[in-house]
Amino acid sequence: MDDSAADTAHMDRAITLAQAAAAGGEVPVGAVVVLDGAVIGEAGNAPIARNDPTAHAEVLAIRAACEQQGNYRLPGATLYVTLEPCTMCAAAIANARIARVVYGASDPKGGAVESGVRFFEQPTCHHHPEVVSGLQADISSDMLRSFFRARRK
Amino acid sequence: MDDSAADTAHMDRAITLAQAAAAGGEVPVGAVVVLDGAVIGEAGNAPIARNDPTAHAEVLAIRAACEQQGNYRLPGATLYVTLEPCTMCAAAIANARIARVVYGASDPKGGAVESGVRFFEQPTCHHHPEVVSGLQADISSDMLRSFFRARRK
Repeated sequence: MDDSAADTAHMDRAITLAQAAAAGGEVPVGAVVVLDGAVIGEAGNAPIARNDPTAHAEVLAIRAACEQQGNYRLPGATLYVTLEPCTMCAAAIANARIARVVYGASDPKGGAVESGVRFFEQPTCHHHPEVVSGLQADISSDMLRSFFRARRK
Repeated sequence: MDDSAADTAHMDRAITLAQAAAAGGEVPVGAVVVLDGAVIGEAGNAPIARNDPTAHAEVLAIRAACEQQGNYRLPGATLYVTLEPCTMCAAAIANARIARVVYGASDPKGGAVESGVRFFEQPTCHHHPEVVSGLQADISSDMLRSFFRARRK
């Protein structure tokens, strides 16, 4: 696979994890951490199921990857996530020293990469990952819209 | 105890947790979550020991408190922490719907309450805790200074 095909395949996996989260009543967001082409951590959003307000998909995937690596940092890793990371997750990504972030839909209300505090551009951010946005964004947006529309009924 | 004496007692506990973290080689920060006068979660900073870049004192104390409460939110709770929360932790505090944050030393390089992104004042922050700063700040600052001085030797 070339890089672009690999990116799409990993994002497809993140979308599958997001769909599984929605089936469990969680806001549909999924994340996958990849190192040297291999998945080393993945998760769907799960704050309600886990009684943990920090259990966003990105944080859970990072924790799983760190446990697998036996390291509190993930140099060289790429994180794929279906939605623009929030402020907590953007800062967790920086703390983990993740090299590259690929996300799907933008999140003007809660995001912190191109939206909100734009954390990676701030002087209090001490690590600056490469960022790719918009991959499979329509699929991620549609999932979120369907989820919230169904809950308002 | 009046409120002020209770605040000092809880911060003293957070300082003890920070000292224990330093003894284990972690940056000395400690945190305690209190609800209705009772401690429901507490932790020292532990990213290295736990292989978890999200294992800051605040996040661990919030996770412990949520597990104890069986809830992914902590309405009415107060979080005591020896150092100004970083961006990740400030956002985790907002996600947890913590009512009140009491911290010790300010952190111009990494903080996100009075420093950096000042997250609680941002439009992408959807919960705004009451904030008290500077409680036992000298003790917390001295701990941090001693820790980093010893590591530079």
